[in-house]
Amino acid sequence: MGFLGTASCQAGVVLDKLEAALEPEGGLMVPYDLGARGSCQVGGNISTCAGGLRLLRYGSMQANTLGIEAVLADGSILNMMNSLKKDNTGYHLRQLFIGSEGTLGIVTQAVLQCPIRPRSINLALLSLKKFRDVLSTFTLAKQTLSETLSSVEMMDSVCMTSVGNKLGLKCPLDNDSDSFFMVVETHGSREDHDVEKMSCFVQEAMDKGLVVDGITSNEPSRMTNLWQLRERITESLCKDQYVFKYDITLPLGKFYEAVEVLKQRLEPFGSEVQVSGFGHVGDGNLHLNVTSPTYSDALQNAIEPFVFEWTSSVGGSISAEHGMGFKKAKFLKYGKSPEAIRLMRSIKSSMDPLGILNPYKVLPPA
Amino acid sequence: MGFLGTASCQAGVVLDKLEAALEPEGGLMVPYDLGARGSCQVGGNISTCAGGLRLLRYGSMQANTLGIEAVLADGSILNMMNSLKKDNTGYHLRQLFIGSEGTLGIVTQAVLQCPIRPRSINLALLSLKKFRDVLSTFTLAKQTLSETLSSVEMMDSVCMTSVGNKLGLKCPLDNDSDSFFMVVETHGSREDHDVEKMSCFVQEAMDKGLVVDGITSNEPSRMTNLWQLRERITESLCKDQYVFKYDITLPLGKFYEAVEVLKQRLEPFGSEVQVSGFGHVGDGNLHLNVTSPTYSDALQNAIEPFVFEWTSSVGGSISAEHGMGFKKAKFLKYGKSPEAIRLMRSIKSSMDPLGILNPYKVLPPA
Repeated sequence: MGFLGTASCQAGVVLDKLEAALEPEGGLMVPYDLGARGSCQVGGNISTCAGGLRLLRYGSMQANTLGIEAVLADGSILNMMNSLKKDNTGYHLRQLFIGSEGTLGIVTQAVLQCPIRPRSINLALLSLKKFRDVLSTFTLAKQTLSETLSSVEMMDSVCMTSVGNKLGLKCPLDNDSDSFFMVVETHGSREDHDVEKMSCFVQEAMDKGLVVDGITSNEPSRMTNLWQLRERITESLCKDQYVFKYDITLPLGKFYEAVEVLKQRLEPFGSEVQVSGFGHVGDGNLHLNVTSPTYSDALQNAIEPFVFEWTSSVGGSISAEHGMGFKKAKFLKYGKSPEAIRLMRSIKSSMDPLGILNPYKVLPPA
Repeated sequence: MGFLGTASCQAGVVLDKLEAALEPEGGLMVPYDLGARGSCQVGGNISTCAGGLRLLRYGSMQANTLGIEAVLADGSILNMMNSLKKDNTGYHLRQLFIGSEGTLGIVTQAVLQCPIRPRSINLALLSLKKFRDVLSTFTLAKQTLSETLSSVEMMDSVCMTSVGNKLGLKCPLDNDSDSFFMVVETHGSREDHDVEKMSCFVQEAMDKGLVVDGITSNEPSRMTNLWQLRERITESLCKDQYVFKYDITLPLGKFYEAVEVLKQRLEPFGSEVQVSGFGHVGDGNLHLNVTSPTYSDALQNAIEPFVFEWTSSVGGSISAEHGMGFKKAKFLKYGKSPEAIRLMRSIKSSMDPLGILNPYKVLPPA
């Protein structure tokens, strides 16, 4: 732990253990937060370039990973356990390992930049009628909540119905079949200022007719309950259903169009096949899901590669925050140009000439 | 310009021209700001991984450069003009070009993440008696100004005397020979909240006996004048003097010790040789200067490589925000391990086998 607010740790530490260890020491926190916080490890978070719930406020892994130690393919240890916020001595090598999914080296230790834990947290759950209103409300939140804005999440009516029916989590707002919901959270240092900013924001959103209904809270257990409505969607969709899951970034104007386009395309499969969307509207990251009582090749073939082609055609990313793994490696061409893939191959073969580090991942077969 | 707050530009655009072009479009701004804003170009800022005055608040080039286009050594064009905040399709190649000083490719275009321009800016100029008090005041600023804190700069008495004597810039606070000065700036969205936070901070710093005297302002022309006291130090030190300039990052406990250690070492050269320090205490980046009426080999040899050895021995970086260039390439070993330098060489030779891109820079001769 440094004066500037940094923490070094082993790669194997579980995210919520690190978060708990940081709390007493000057009240720092890990900059990112994931639903998987109870099981995911920091080394994996770095290797997959995790995003999560508050990237909007605290920034990406590229922004927050100050140092790493990695074991290279030849067995040598690359010690770059730097905890400095500025260091321009040579190439920024650590960045190569962030998001390379263990294919260039194995991250064994890390130094993270850690912000001060906010003294005041405020949350709003909002219901809206149109996705267009979600975007306008996001713009308003950026203007009025500004420096305190830490999360802007959205979920559609299908997701909200699912957490209600499958997990018994009751939404305190009305859920019509065309409803959208947003979770807006702020992190700040002064409770009086932050409560005032949040209530001005909600009031203005209602006055403008953007928001149908909303509740705000800064009571910790109440906020935890409200977050469950968003955080446990993946779990609820999996109950008794087969789920085709996609994790994409889109230009915001196209964000929810992904759901609508896929819904139309899958109409012939009947009403048991449902398309839904939720995610981090604050960074354009949509979690797009197709649920069906069972798996079918026909359904799979109707979705892929269409979903990747469409995402690529509108300038999106086919993997926002979960990487390519081995399942999506063959679709890398929808995300990167031939020149970029050639350069990736050249880096991979110069750093791991025998191909022993996580083979089959990230890069498609030549 | 995207909905999420991004801007694409040619590499040759001058920083303050880009800043001016952004202002009308939704009131965005470039995340970084440099004293050289009137002449430096965005491509150079990316290639040298510029830091500047508000990195503390808005983050590094790694955080803010979303996309680039670069020409590679073989003449091919690598188009990664991505404006997405999350994209995990393959290796994060753009990061390789940030800070590589044109030795791996020539950056020709870029996409920057751009924050909303703050509605309210507040500044404090403070005088203090001891460097220890500078650190305590910085900690207090992080706690009380928190999410609004954008710059924490310091300068010593020698620097303040220099801008007064050489440029006629009058410091409104007393300047004794043992004084330190700080510029603390906040960027926020609500003037009433921000003024209150700033005045609470200054009051508390005075009540605690950390700050001797201080003035605050949110009047634009007054703030510009006060910033001159900090921004024009480099210019004033150069007047009628030879300057040995170093740009280092240090753990904050060692920040000003760099000046004291060098002062003691250079005592035999007499009182005409002056050591002074100023810089970004918010990110540990010290600009360390030795001024002398004339250049001398003896003085140069007394400073180098000592200053690099000492910086390295306390865990600092010998180049915080200006890169290695060709003058410091031979000192790279004080910043990076043999394994890291080996990996840099391997990347350089795989990407530029003929060594035609900016030869002699960054990496020392093999």
